[in-house]
Amino acid sequence: MEYTGISAASGYALGPAFLLQDRQIQVLKSEVTKENLDSEILRFEEALRKAAQDLEEIKERARQTIGSEEAEIFTAHILVLQDPEYSGAIKDMIRSEARNVEWAVQAVTDQFLELFASMDNDYIRERAADLRDVSSRLLRHLLGISTQSLSEITEKVILVAYDLTPSDTAQLDRDKVVGIVTNIGGRTSHSAIMARSMEIPAVVGVQDIMEKIKSGEFVIVDGSEGKIIVNPTEDLIQLYKEKQLSYEAQREELKKLVQLPSMTPDGIQVELIANIGNPKDGLAAVENGAEGIGLYRTEFLYMGREALPSEEEQFEAYKSVTEMFGREHPVVIRSLDIGGDKELPYLDMPKEMNPFLGYRAIRLCLDRTDIFRTQLRAILRASAYGNIKLMYPMIATLEELRKANKVLETVKQELLAEAIPFNKGMEVGIMVEIPAVAVMADRFAREVDFFSIGTNDLIQYTMAADRMNETVSYLYQPFNLAVLRLIRSVIESAHKEGKRVAMCGEMAGDLTALPILLGLGLDEFSMSASSVLLARALVRQLTMKKARSIAEAVLEMDNPLEIENFVKQEMQC
Amino acid sequence: MEYTGISAASGYALGPAFLLQDRQIQVLKSEVTKENLDSEILRFEEALRKAAQDLEEIKERARQTIGSEEAEIFTAHILVLQDPEYSGAIKDMIRSEARNVEWAVQAVTDQFLELFASMDNDYIRERAADLRDVSSRLLRHLLGISTQSLSEITEKVILVAYDLTPSDTAQLDRDKVVGIVTNIGGRTSHSAIMARSMEIPAVVGVQDIMEKIKSGEFVIVDGSEGKIIVNPTEDLIQLYKEKQLSYEAQREELKKLVQLPSMTPDGIQVELIANIGNPKDGLAAVENGAEGIGLYRTEFLYMGREALPSEEEQFEAYKSVTEMFGREHPVVIRSLDIGGDKELPYLDMPKEMNPFLGYRAIRLCLDRTDIFRTQLRAILRASAYGNIKLMYPMIATLEELRKANKVLETVKQELLAEAIPFNKGMEVGIMVEIPAVAVMADRFAREVDFFSIGTNDLIQYTMAADRMNETVSYLYQPFNLAVLRLIRSVIESAHKEGKRVAMCGEMAGDLTALPILLGLGLDEFSMSASSVLLARALVRQLTMKKARSIAEAVLEMDNPLEIENFVKQEMQC
Repeated sequence: MEYTGISAASGYALGPAFLLQDRQIQVLKSEVTKENLDSEILRFEEALRKAAQDLEEIKERARQTIGSEEAEIFTAHILVLQDPEYSGAIKDMIRSEARNVEWAVQAVTDQFLELFASMDNDYIRERAADLRDVSSRLLRHLLGISTQSLSEITEKVILVAYDLTPSDTAQLDRDKVVGIVTNIGGRTSHSAIMARSMEIPAVVGVQDIMEKIKSGEFVIVDGSEGKIIVNPTEDLIQLYKEKQLSYEAQREELKKLVQLPSMTPDGIQVELIANIGNPKDGLAAVENGAEGIGLYRTEFLYMGREALPSEEEQFEAYKSVTEMFGREHPVVIRSLDIGGDKELPYLDMPKEMNPFLGYRAIRLCLDRTDIFRTQLRAILRASAYGNIKLMYPMIATLEELRKANKVLETVKQELLAEAIPFNKGMEVGIMVEIPAVAVMADRFAREVDFFSIGTNDLIQYTMAADRMNETVSYLYQPFNLAVLRLIRSVIESAHKEGKRVAMCGEMAGDLTALPILLGLGLDEFSMSASSVLLARALVRQLTMKKARSIAEAVLEMDNPLEIENFVKQEMQC
Repeated sequence: MEYTGISAASGYALGPAFLLQDRQIQVLKSEVTKENLDSEILRFEEALRKAAQDLEEIKERARQTIGSEEAEIFTAHILVLQDPEYSGAIKDMIRSEARNVEWAVQAVTDQFLELFASMDNDYIRERAADLRDVSSRLLRHLLGISTQSLSEITEKVILVAYDLTPSDTAQLDRDKVVGIVTNIGGRTSHSAIMARSMEIPAVVGVQDIMEKIKSGEFVIVDGSEGKIIVNPTEDLIQLYKEKQLSYEAQREELKKLVQLPSMTPDGIQVELIANIGNPKDGLAAVENGAEGIGLYRTEFLYMGREALPSEEEQFEAYKSVTEMFGREHPVVIRSLDIGGDKELPYLDMPKEMNPFLGYRAIRLCLDRTDIFRTQLRAILRASAYGNIKLMYPMIATLEELRKANKVLETVKQELLAEAIPFNKGMEVGIMVEIPAVAVMADRFAREVDFFSIGTNDLIQYTMAADRMNETVSYLYQPFNLAVLRLIRSVIESAHKEGKRVAMCGEMAGDLTALPILLGLGLDEFSMSASSVLLARALVRQLTMKKARSIAEAVLEMDNPLEIENFVKQEMQC
């Protein structure tokens, strides 16, 4: 039997199914006598404590096996446990209704989930998933139910689940779980993102799959096409084994490109560089042949902790990445981009009606120069150890750029006075992610060393559509002609002033967008490390002449779908 | 003594002060025996009922005396009363704490206000003001305290208050209250907006003013300069009486322009038209010499009610305005622009993380074609009675425009089949308020009959800054060169296709922006009715030659403040 779903991570896997049973927990309602209410509260506090301890351990394991960015999800869980609104409501209910703690946990959780259900957006849905995960952890501790542990899997299996919680994926052993199938989820769901980052072939959103497969049945996962086959014929198994081999071979082939230049057949060289969130990602970038770092997201240094990171701590983090790349390859460090959907609990930031249009990134840094100066000091100090460049996010006006540079200048004077070494010629650029800057690129080009186009936000603002909001996400159109025109004009303006232009949004790693961007003259493409070799393979077979003719042709079209299809067709022949 | 504040409504007023005493209500905490809890809950429900009845009456009075847009504030109050979260929390507290209802109202209100206080933005502040107004109304009913009634004022006075609640302003008699002074508030506070709309000279934000003036003391309100003088000398009284006379004379002088054309001395004619929210505003537009309606905000027909307005009701509203302006002058009706910060409780719209980047306006209409078709039928039917034009808000892509036009086409076919008359040549245009459309204006110009630039949103998206958010409102810059460039390019693109361009944001009524916009070739300026004659006076003394040279000069500058000052200086000499 064949079932289709959504391709979440490409590749092929074959093996017996391992069904992760729906761990529905039964909670009984019972009355508690007044005398026993206090001990019921104590039981709750004990469960809170144990659950938090669990989570700290899982988080640490996740940090080591998957990466610190992903481990942040458990910080979110710990915050739920510590949220006085949640635990307070449970305690109140135990007392006011004189009920057992299990029932109170379930009832309060249901109330919160109901409230969340009325708010229909991706962000809230993630918070709801967190809450579900946390509450079932609490209940398991209260009821003494041990977790069905994924680490107990002993043979290579295809993991089949209704959905995978962050706690599940943190326990995944990628030598045992060779493929993943889930009932719910889309390409951007947690399960899908984790599968891609762990490079496990996965198909998500296969409806009612838990009822269609039995544990032990043989399954083929076709992560590239987004389908699965249960109890396949011997012929099909043979066919997919061959597909698997050729897929692996292709990946091996790509590995050969690690040391080769990113040059078109007609001799145009571009830079393929990587986006990273921490030093560990830096290693992956080196392994995948990235020619530097195009975007070092420093906010992860600030997240999942209780206070601001010290100058020393930041200096070490920046220096370690710089040293991986030596003096030749650039490491572009973006100053703190917090706010929007990224909060720092310890900063007491204002709640905003439209956080994406609010107090974030450089706006916050120019207001909180204490935070900004510490970071600039750490970056400048690290600049003595390699080719560091500094980049400001969310610049909207020339005044902001000049203000930021003034702060940088005073920090430089400070370091000079203290005789601390730094690179006096460190390049300073800006993210182009606000339409006003794209429109004014000619003026900005005179006052920066480089541009880096942040397409995620630029598209969002240009189209006035929140890409996280499902009801309008259809308007998040990288191939909209307005977006392409802005990109072209940014590149032309920069080149007129002899400045280079990079791109560090999702679009830079999109193989369909790449021919257009190359044709428009983009100099540097910054993407996730795992995309670098695929992009290099493409660049090495696409002439600049052809890229230019593709770019020219699409600038005459007006339909994003037509543009996308045209590029795909051109690249096939 | 002279005190300074913020100019809220220009003009001059002289007279004795009338202090609106701070009506702080004292609430005592008392225990209620278990048997009496039910009757306490009944008292609360009775107070809820009476307060709602009050509000319905005040709302009706406000609708008649101030306008339906302003009356909506009382719908917000009624919604607070009906909010089960609020009333439920009060009932819960009465029962769980066994307390009197007055104390519970106060305590729950304080809890809510505290929560609001942690969310620092204008929208929430308004909700907090609503809640304060509603809770004190409830308490007055519970305690049997009669409201100090502004309608009891018998002589001409200067009203001095800590702040004016919407309930206060709804009771204002503008023949009695000749000037207003408040302790708190800014130019966009409720008090300030109401004062401007009622044309009562007002100064807001005069700190501690309640302690500095006694009732009956003579006060001069200088609304133009934003200052007040208490117990002035006879000389000052004489001076201000003269200022008042010349101000009145200037306004009389402006009235003479009602019938004159909006033409520059060198013979360029533009259209000065008005933004309205309901038929009553239409009359004010006619009185102020507007040459048509540039923006009929139809969403007010949908607000403050329980269900969607019928086709018939809409038809009557559109027809009545059209008939005011005859066949010659245009009435541009904007299709429903709901969502963002404007909600319709009965539509069950999703809660969004960034409503300004969300499901609103044409996005909602293309999804809910049932609502859209009813409105289009009403507009088309009204088009038989005058020069109606249709305008779609929040268009982002050509696909959306084409989809909307397809719906319009099917509605036309329906009317044809039913032999219902409508204007087959009715012009159809779009708002240019999303950067993507400004960038693609050349393509859009081929497929529309006209553009209307909505600067409020266009600036907001171009700068990626929520103009309602105080922490980033400094980025709401109409004179930012990026904004001016986009406006220029929209006008040029339209003119190349022989199409006209209007502007209907705040900027169109700004006398400093007007010379630049005129110089850039803007054809139609749509503004609040009260600004039309001032704009006409300016147009009639500014040559197109000079306007063009001003526009050319500012396009070379890059600092918004420099641009603004340059225009002001040029216009003085």
